[in-house]
Amino acid sequence: MLDLVLSSIDRGVLTLTFNRPDRLNAWTDAMGRRYFDLLAEAEKDPEVRVIVVTGAGRGFCAGADFQTLNAIQDGSYAEEPDPRPHTFPTTVGKPVIAAVNGACAGLGMVHALVCDLVFTAAEAKWTTAFARRGLIAEYGLSWILPRLIGQGRAMDLLLSGRTFTGAEAAGLGLAARSVPGENLLEEVAAYARELAVHSSPASMSVMKRQIWGDWNTTLEAAETAARRLMAESFGRPDFAEGVASFLERREPRFPPL
Amino acid sequence: MLDLVLSSIDRGVLTLTFNRPDRLNAWTDAMGRRYFDLLAEAEKDPEVRVIVVTGAGRGFCAGADFQTLNAIQDGSYAEEPDPRPHTFPTTVGKPVIAAVNGACAGLGMVHALVCDLVFTAAEAKWTTAFARRGLIAEYGLSWILPRLIGQGRAMDLLLSGRTFTGAEAAGLGLAARSVPGENLLEEVAAYARELAVHSSPASMSVMKRQIWGDWNTTLEAAETAARRLMAESFGRPDFAEGVASFLERREPRFPPL
Amino acid sequence: MLDLVLSSIDRGVLTLTFNRPDRLNAWTDAMGRRYFDLLAEAEKDPEVRVIVVTGAGRGFCAGADFQTLNAIQDGSYAEEPDPRPHTFPTTVGKPVIAAVNGACAGLGMVHALVCDLVFTAAEAKWTTAFARRGLIAEYGLSWILPRLIGQGRAMDLLLSGRTFTGAEAAGLGLAARSVPGENLLEEVAAYARELAVHSSPASMSVMKRQIWGDWNTTLEAAETAARRLMAESFGRPDFAEGVASFLERREPRFPPL
Repeated sequence: MLDLVLSSIDRGVLTLTFNRPDRLNAWTDAMGRRYFDLLAEAEKDPEVRVIVVTGAGRGFCAGADFQTLNAIQDGSYAEEPDPRPHTFPTTVGKPVIAAVNGACAGLGMVHALVCDLVFTAAEAKWTTAFARRGLIAEYGLSWILPRLIGQGRAMDLLLSGRTFTGAEAAGLGLAARSVPGENLLEEVAAYARELAVHSSPASMSVMKRQIWGDWNTTLEAAETAARRLMAESFGRPDFAEGVASFLERREPRFPPL
Repeated sequence: MLDLVLSSIDRGVLTLTFNRPDRLNAWTDAMGRRYFDLLAEAEKDPEVRVIVVTGAGRGFCAGADFQTLNAIQDGSYAEEPDPRPHTFPTTVGKPVIAAVNGACAGLGMVHALVCDLVFTAAEAKWTTAFARRGLIAEYGLSWILPRLIGQGRAMDLLLSGRTFTGAEAAGLGLAARSVPGENLLEEVAAYARELAVHSSPASMSVMKRQIWGDWNTTLEAAETAARRLMAESFGRPDFAEGVASFLERREPRFPPL
Repeated sequence: MLDLVLSSIDRGVLTLTFNRPDRLNAWTDAMGRRYFDLLAEAEKDPEVRVIVVTGAGRGFCAGADFQTLNAIQDGSYAEEPDPRPHTFPTTVGKPVIAAVNGACAGLGMVHALVCDLVFTAAEAKWTTAFARRGLIAEYGLSWILPRLIGQGRAMDLLLSGRTFTGAEAAGLGLAARSVPGENLLEEVAAYARELAVHSSPASMSVMKRQIWGDWNTTLEAAETAARRLMAESFGRPDFAEGVASFLERREPRFPPL
């Protein structure tokens, strides 16, 4: 079970790799539970500052496993679902970056987009797929997608279930970067490493919560909340170190979260 | 009165055509009532899976008819308005695609954007126009436009009332596709036909409601609602057919809505 | 104190210029108070139809003044803050356009983005900066930025605090226009002058309130509110003049707000 998601860390950047390559890392409850357990551990681990999620082999995640879907159809599905929602990564206090190395479909696309940021291989094949299977916009995708790329583009991708490339995903604003697949992990690692060194873990944790949450507030309330969060940040060592390192023109040494 | 909007159907795709070409299809209450009646009929008609809206002649819809505006100004306007709001198309349970063949201004732009998706002729002239007539962002356009193209771009188009082309509209994310005018109806028909064949009518109906509605909910609530909608979709024949046709690598035969 | 922000007016367009060029116009409470006072005066002044905000010298605004930050850190900061929130420009009933001529960082970026529209020099350097100083997304930026450029792009800019150019800002949808720095003020003036002549002050005032406010309402409520605002606009001289000038193919002569 532990091999369902691989885990490795390098200088503050934890990489989690969906590891069912013979099934294009199709999602099972067991793989999901392991993934979320590792995220929960990473949140507490002071060594981890940034988390990268990718897939083993040719795919990122091809969606819900078909054996699961078939079992749902014939009524034989009996696995206890994880109580954590599929949006769990949005609540982890460290940045989670999806590195979409290949096929990213259906529930796999949900899991790319509940990450905070997406890097994609230019040639990766993406699709929402749901409308073509008689399904619906799953697990909050109808909330997230329009906020990433605008409502019209979200309608196109959801209603049609058409396939599009990583290059198009970046053009639509769905992915922050599209790079040739052979350079993907290297580019993500460089970006993640930059965050791990130059961005305060406390800052990133607060900002992540602000960005996901401020869709549900007014500008006035967001401004007021920001004043309180700012006052809190003035009392943290990260602020002193952020200002000092800037004035001294050196790399910061931010404390772990 | 019936000729104010033309109607024709081809293999699941209903095309409705604003038909006051000598007035660039300027909006009158009578034309609007006929349009909405046809949409309401289309929603119930099992033959209709996707709806395309376009304009006869050189324009899509040049805005409110000037005779109506003049009558409002001199107090002589007496027509009973349709009780359905201008946003009525957003509540129809089938995808509505605007095919903007030419001039699209003011209230005409509202009617392009309350469709779920927009295809536009690259050379079509668009304008919000309202600020230049002493009017305001009409009928929800100040809600829709920022959600399609971002707030800054919406400010530019609304405050200035400047004219822009269909090609720019696509670049801004306002239209999903911009194509040379001579190919517009063909391209829209191909896209609509693809939805009619490959996308489940039940899926499209649910997704459309999710996307328009999820602007007013939290991610958590959207995720929870999606779980319920998913459970419902598992019980529909569309899901069985969607999975079966995928595994059998054949065209699906989805039941009508 | 009065020199902290320069003020000049030309045919309806008021230009306010942050004027601490030796500090790249870094924000102090005194400069902010003077800026807001001038905005409040401009709102009441019938000569002013559009407001442009820019910076003297090489920068737009490099963020909070470091002497202020240092005083906060060592507890010696004692200046009475202005009671108006940093989002005050969003409540002014006239369009405010930022002309970002150079460095635009941290709190300076907040002040560019609480303007209604942004024009930027292509070579201007932008950065949120906060994460690199141990701070958070200040004064509503976590509300505004995702609504301007989408959530993923906002995450990238906020989490990384990376520097980006005005040219990239426009590509992201953050700025409406990016032009070579030497043409910036001329291009902004031409756009602002167009608004001052062709857009009704009453229309712009209502629209601005609609756009900032409609993020917190439903489409149905926005549509209903627009009907009421439209009925009000029918009674204003701007509507009569807007229609008359259009039919007579001449420049409108809209009354001041």
